[in-house]
Amino acid sequence: MTKLTFVGLGLGDQGVSIGGIKAIREADTAYIEYYTTPFAPRLLSEVEGAAGRTLTVVDRSFVEDGKAILDEASAGTVVLAVQGDPMIATTHSDLMVRAISRGIRTEIIHGATIATAAASASGLHYYKFGATVTFTRESKNYHEQVYKRVHQNLLDGSHSLLLLEYDVEGGQGVTPQSLMEGLLRAEANYKRGVVSGQTFLVILSRVGTAQESIRAGSIDGLVTLDYGEPPHVAIVPGRLHFTEKEALAAVAGIAEQQVRDNASDVRRTAQVLIPKYVEKAKKALETARSSLKEGYEQVFENAELYTKDAERFLADGQDELAMLSIGYAEGLIDSLTFSGKLELEW
Amino acid sequence: MTKLTFVGLGLGDQGVSIGGIKAIREADTAYIEYYTTPFAPRLLSEVEGAAGRTLTVVDRSFVEDGKAILDEASAGTVVLAVQGDPMIATTHSDLMVRAISRGIRTEIIHGATIATAAASASGLHYYKFGATVTFTRESKNYHEQVYKRVHQNLLDGSHSLLLLEYDVEGGQGVTPQSLMEGLLRAEANYKRGVVSGQTFLVILSRVGTAQESIRAGSIDGLVTLDYGEPPHVAIVPGRLHFTEKEALAAVAGIAEQQVRDNASDVRRTAQVLIPKYVEKAKKALETARSSLKEGYEQVFENAELYTKDAERFLADGQDELAMLSIGYAEGLIDSLTFSGKLELEW
Repeated sequence: MTKLTFVGLGLGDQGVSIGGIKAIREADTAYIEYYTTPFAPRLLSEVEGAAGRTLTVVDRSFVEDGKAILDEASAGTVVLAVQGDPMIATTHSDLMVRAISRGIRTEIIHGATIATAAASASGLHYYKFGATVTFTRESKNYHEQVYKRVHQNLLDGSHSLLLLEYDVEGGQGVTPQSLMEGLLRAEANYKRGVVSGQTFLVILSRVGTAQESIRAGSIDGLVTLDYGEPPHVAIVPGRLHFTEKEALAAVAGIAEQQVRDNASDVRRTAQVLIPKYVEKAKKALETARSSLKEGYEQVFENAELYTKDAERFLADGQDELAMLSIGYAEGLIDSLTFSGKLELEW
Repeated sequence: MTKLTFVGLGLGDQGVSIGGIKAIREADTAYIEYYTTPFAPRLLSEVEGAAGRTLTVVDRSFVEDGKAILDEASAGTVVLAVQGDPMIATTHSDLMVRAISRGIRTEIIHGATIATAAASASGLHYYKFGATVTFTRESKNYHEQVYKRVHQNLLDGSHSLLLLEYDVEGGQGVTPQSLMEGLLRAEANYKRGVVSGQTFLVILSRVGTAQESIRAGSIDGLVTLDYGEPPHVAIVPGRLHFTEKEALAAVAGIAEQQVRDNASDVRRTAQVLIPKYVEKAKKALETARSSLKEGYEQVFENAELYTKDAERFLADGQDELAMLSIGYAEGLIDSLTFSGKLELEW
């Protein structure tokens, strides 16, 4: 038989499943790869002990190159064991596609992954998480991408899971502190009111191991703490159901009143602008009506109508139509000043 | 020692981890719960075989009530083994909070879950998935919630994972067909142009078992197929990276040209409206300029400027400002007609 099996090793030292152990035991060749998260110290010996065989440790470049793996999988059965769930890293997906195109049978034996385990451990509801992002060490732009993703998730009321990059080969990773500083830097740059010292974060360290720790609080408080060894991930909670508040307080060991909702800090563009514009439009209309006595009733009526529409559309969540309406109302009145009929201070 | 350990059994019959087996073996009492997905037929015997002990099968009401579990966990060590990863179901989260509040030590041993395994198996990138939703049998409104979630994810370019509810006790679940019909019904009702017979779906059945099957294609084609036994999940792909197209085609066994991008079907309100309004505004401005020779240059200049702004904001993705600008430009010109200076057909 020829086959390439990807075995997810789950979290910690003892995350491999009995199906995974069986596949490792029976394979002609068994590789184990590590580079995306700190190697659980006893992982290799636990897997080797359970499977009753040795595995060959390989690095990123070996898997990316993939030639040896594919050649062996064309002639026999090969297992590539990886931490977490396979395919979360694109390298594995690429290798699987190459295997399929060479006619090699492939299989995935799934493992637990931080992508869902962090949600589970935090007490927050999984289905309320928006898209996940990785916070890397280097790219300034990428920090901004993370900031924008958090913003978008918060506008939607969704929670954000932020994975913190760790490079095992280089032995360096993103600390919770550098995440928090990066988010505040992005805020200073973009000024969208997404992140501040009061932003409520959850930092989960070493999830799925005996050394797991969950801390929750404001950035101002969390930035002073020591989180110990990686891996770490962070969650920026969005709108919170009361059962989520309760669960998060319980797992983080804080009082329920300390749990804060970040979603209410973040407002949509229209939510910020419309109320200001409506107020201005009403004042301008009042001035215009008292200055221009005749010939402009239709202009005024329409300006009034569209100002009301803007408020109604905003309440309905139809932001685009709200903005269109208030823009139109303003245009109707301003036209009178641009054509010299009216002197107006907006 | 007293403790309550939640053990995730992962997917299929052999998804329990060696850490999970150890916890089950060492516990004073071991429960296994099933009700959210079809029971993998050999799961109980595999777990009992690996742990070298029997487990007590319990149902939903036993876990929801939780009294027996909490009482036993106050006096000794208790394991509650559940399919997938614990806490994805709120019942487990609730039980954990109650345990913590009673001073009982708790632990989660994570397992693989369909929430990430489906993404892995599909070849799509995990970080491009938006929030996950469950499609239930009963609630009409909930179908609409699913439709709206898919819409929002597509606007963002994100993929949507749709879990199909299954009730083991009742022996009934949502079929891929009823999902597709539900989505089309929601489309007929909401008419937002999100779903049609051409919508490209991925249906994954029995993920993580030897009977796994992955089918991908348009709803029109997929609705005629037989998917066999549950569990099933569906993915509505959003914007696709070329490596995702390649991987999805490989795992579903279709040609790459058959993989279709649903995100390009769905347009934002501003994307639909602005081009129409810009065209109208330009024509109106032309007419106005040729009819009114003097005294309105400032009106015209501003209308022209704000029309250009609308196009620029739209290109930047700043929809609200684009709508504000085009509304303003229209208002400037329409004011002239409302005040009787100009006759204009928009």
